[in-house]
Amino acid sequence: MNIVLLSGGSGKRLWPLSNDIRSKQFIKIFKGKDGEYESMVQRVYHQIKSVDDDATVTIATSKKQVSAINNQLGEGVGISIEPCRRDTFPAIALATAYLHDVQGVPENEAVVVCPVDPYVEREYFEALKELGRLAAEGTANLTLMGIEPTYPSEKYGYIIPESKENVSKVSTFKEKPDVETAKDYIARGALWNGGVFAYKISYLLDKAHELIDFTDYHDLYAKYESLEKISFDYAVVEKEKSIAVMRFSGEWKDLGTWNTLTEAMEEECVGDATLNDTCENVNVINDLSIPILCMGLKNAVVAASPEGILVSDKEQSSYIKPYVDKLDQQVMFAEKSWGSFLVLDVVDESLTIKVTLNPGHRMNYHSHEHRDEVWTVISGTGRTVVDGVVRRVRPGDVVSVIAGQKHTIIADSELQVVEVQLGSEINVADKKKFDFDFDAM
Amino acid sequence: MNIVLLSGGSGKRLWPLSNDIRSKQFIKIFKGKDGEYESMVQRVYHQIKSVDDDATVTIATSKKQVSAINNQLGEGVGISIEPCRRDTFPAIALATAYLHDVQGVPENEAVVVCPVDPYVEREYFEALKELGRLAAEGTANLTLMGIEPTYPSEKYGYIIPESKENVSKVSTFKEKPDVETAKDYIARGALWNGGVFAYKISYLLDKAHELIDFTDYHDLYAKYESLEKISFDYAVVEKEKSIAVMRFSGEWKDLGTWNTLTEAMEEECVGDATLNDTCENVNVINDLSIPILCMGLKNAVVAASPEGILVSDKEQSSYIKPYVDKLDQQVMFAEKSWGSFLVLDVVDESLTIKVTLNPGHRMNYHSHEHRDEVWTVISGTGRTVVDGVVRRVRPGDVVSVIAGQKHTIIADSELQVVEVQLGSEINVADKKKFDFDFDAM
Repeated sequence: MNIVLLSGGSGKRLWPLSNDIRSKQFIKIFKGKDGEYESMVQRVYHQIKSVDDDATVTIATSKKQVSAINNQLGEGVGISIEPCRRDTFPAIALATAYLHDVQGVPENEAVVVCPVDPYVEREYFEALKELGRLAAEGTANLTLMGIEPTYPSEKYGYIIPESKENVSKVSTFKEKPDVETAKDYIARGALWNGGVFAYKISYLLDKAHELIDFTDYHDLYAKYESLEKISFDYAVVEKEKSIAVMRFSGEWKDLGTWNTLTEAMEEECVGDATLNDTCENVNVINDLSIPILCMGLKNAVVAASPEGILVSDKEQSSYIKPYVDKLDQQVMFAEKSWGSFLVLDVVDESLTIKVTLNPGHRMNYHSHEHRDEVWTVISGTGRTVVDGVVRRVRPGDVVSVIAGQKHTIIADSELQVVEVQLGSEINVADKKKFDFDFDAM
Repeated sequence: MNIVLLSGGSGKRLWPLSNDIRSKQFIKIFKGKDGEYESMVQRVYHQIKSVDDDATVTIATSKKQVSAINNQLGEGVGISIEPCRRDTFPAIALATAYLHDVQGVPENEAVVVCPVDPYVEREYFEALKELGRLAAEGTANLTLMGIEPTYPSEKYGYIIPESKENVSKVSTFKEKPDVETAKDYIARGALWNGGVFAYKISYLLDKAHELIDFTDYHDLYAKYESLEKISFDYAVVEKEKSIAVMRFSGEWKDLGTWNTLTEAMEEECVGDATLNDTCENVNVINDLSIPILCMGLKNAVVAASPEGILVSDKEQSSYIKPYVDKLDQQVMFAEKSWGSFLVLDVVDESLTIKVTLNPGHRMNYHSHEHRDEVWTVISGTGRTVVDGVVRRVRPGDVVSVIAGQKHTIIADSELQVVEVQLGSEINVADKKKFDFDFDAM
């Protein structure tokens, strides 16, 4: 099976664990098989691999998620990087071209496209496999998964099939209705559109060439910024006559808010938390290193990260977005291609952070115009380079870098460094990158 | 007026803002006249001084509160330090001897004793002045303040006066009753015993000499550890025949739990906090530098400090103690005589803290057997001494101290230092102090 997982934007609805830098799909709150916590993207990836070990998994996403994906899934997963956001049709065209031109998948094979963050069980991925098989058979140009509705939701679009057979031609699509209309649709056998579909590579590439002037993946990537924003529904689905739908009646949840996300948690708490016995329907996700004590709460979610602390009635939590938009705050934690950083302290003219470098990884060779930096190694071993001078470092070693000096650090084992930044203008934009022949070290 | 404020123990009921190191009376949550937040002890001190600018204020407390008292009240306040806890009679005897022998207060003057943490208005301190005047007149050996009960509380002892006059002889004392008995007492004109009383210095010193073999304050201090634990009620009040009580009907609150403390807050929030409009009767005290967002909460208190986060139904918050007892945690923040420290990060074999030194203050000259330390100055100026070598430091300067080296740091202006500790056995007990002639620097 070839599967493309669409990995979306920032997800402020799950603040403070999700923000501009870290998206909800990377929050580790699900208990994996080995007892370790895993994120939505890890859970889905492991589920796909358990259903089809040979599956080619490609994540279609923006550049800023690449580090988190590599950190969480390793190098085995394909990533189709969108140079900028251009809605779903260009993204799917790019990912399909990537599969064909970069991964070498033949054009008569099928591709299944689905969001990266459904909360589902094994049967869902068995259904995706079947969807791919139907698409490869070619009875229709597009084969959708239609989810059997469990209530007359106003949140989803509806697919009206021609028959109530397991696989049927699609009669028509309906936009998000009101509750009464939804009841009527459901009475007519309608299905939720969960944004899951399959097609043959040749079909999609033909569509792409019809609408975009490009030669291959690399050409498409290069001109991506110039493409028109257009949704897959608008560009393809609405114009296509040959569409089939396959019913799916298994468990399916969309974890977009704290309310729905906490429903999917197998344990009340993740992280250091205590609930007294008068708490009812309370979930705590604590990403800080200090304890949380909850007493006498009902139907509440508490989420804490280096970005902030949310304490909310579960139902109210779905109205979070405008409040988070108003919080004007510094990024306190971020995963990078080389590891991660955590802000420890902010004072006037100085910022202290903890930098963790993964083994074998390094920062870019760079300089700052307006700040000095002092590194104190607290664990692991590695090498620093300051203006070309290489030095081995271990815990307790201190390296001072003054403004203008080019510098980098390379981790031989996992390396943790306390970095004190000093200057009157400390900001992330003050960074110049340089080439350095790391292979010659 | 001579006033002795009894400053009690740790107050785990107000965790995470109060703990073994920091007591509730030092939490800054009341809006002072100048708009700055002040603590209970600051509020009470300023109230006393506004009623009687010449008042001699002495705080009777343990050694570990001395730094916080000096930081919050300056050097103007007298402190009677109890070398160890020996209950209220020895504490009051020691404070009275301190007033007489150290402060030189004549023995015919009166002393008013009251707890350090009542939440009261100016009229209360006017009443204390009157209490002192009555004691100085000498119509009774002991003059108590009796608080007019507002409900039949089971939390307080009761004083039954002989008459309903404003000042009356005491007929009898009653231990904490049940509600029905309390109703009966109140019908008989009973008053709450708020632990406030006044006496002449000569009276109390005579009592002390009867029960304890000592010459003067210094002798009493020296043998304090050998004294029997005995309460003032048991040692003095129960045996005394000549006791008067003065009624007080003004506002009086005992702020022992989050529930009662938040009632006294003038604003919903202290620190960085947002409440949405569906929150009702919610208070937030945020001592962290990250934002707290509350949505849809009712009758709740949220308190956050470097020690942890409490989210509690207000009424439930009075049952906090056993839960806090179970939290086995490191002290993350402490006020010291020289300033304060805040733990920024803990990893295996390394601890990073931020040290703030008040201008003109310094650490002890000391060494550690099992850890190295690296100081990076982030603000202010000062001097370091390492094995006798003095060095001036300013922001960006780094001083490395290896295990065994004697070291200290002196702040010329307010000085902030990031200290990275490194070693396999990092603990507060690993500290040897040395003499150093700071005056010769």
